[in-house]
Amino acid sequence: MPAVNLTQKLDSFIDHWSPKIVSTFNGHDVMVVKVKGEFVWHSHEDTDDFFLVLKGQLTIQFRDSEVQLAPGDLYIVPKGLEHRTVACEEAHLLLIEPHGTPNTGDMATAATKDAI
Amino acid sequence: MPAVNLTQKLDSFIDHWSPKIVSTFNGHDVMVVKVKGEFVWHSHEDTDDFFLVLKGQLTIQFRDSEVQLAPGDLYIVPKGLEHRTVACEEAHLLLIEPHGTPNTGDMATAATKDAI
Repeated sequence: MPAVNLTQKLDSFIDHWSPKIVSTFNGHDVMVVKVKGEFVWHSHEDTDDFFLVLKGQLTIQFRDSEVQLAPGDLYIVPKGLEHRTVACEEAHLLLIEPHGTPNTGDMATAATKDAI
Repeated sequence: MPAVNLTQKLDSFIDHWSPKIVSTFNGHDVMVVKVKGEFVWHSHEDTDDFFLVLKGQLTIQFRDSEVQLAPGDLYIVPKGLEHRTVACEEAHLLLIEPHGTPNTGDMATAATKDAI
């Protein structure tokens, strides 16, 4: 397998809130995503939610607090905890979720995750 | 939980080949490590091995090939595949392994992994 350059992968698409699978790890999808604006409130009952900010600023809101993330900041949202991500300007993230996890917490509204 | 700034975590220690746990994710330890020189040849029978280069250059050698990684490069070594990491100058890495995984593939020779 060749190395995966995350910047090159991120340069290869422009859409927001559409995670792209760049590798797999122990049954998880390793993904990059571009985000801008507000996502929906959601939670994942069966998995923690892994966020690493690669570029830009990200806010993860909880019902009673929020956390601000900059490049090089890591945050793991514990499973079952309702949250919403917000980025005023475009931000680039590394995400890890078990294969098949709906990004909205609901298969009916989840984005398709394609490999790139 | 506060955000985990990977650079600050890496600034807090100086030893090489001694992974430090910065968070946990779905039963895995999320770790940062400083490496310099050659590690031992090893494999992990039960887990893939996640590497993301944060700073410096890393070579992952296999018995019949090798891959060169720079900052922003990701590599997942499949479980069971023998490999050795080499860094001529100090490199900083993000690692993810199931909790309790010996970094050498052998509990008898594995480094202790402390949380920081």
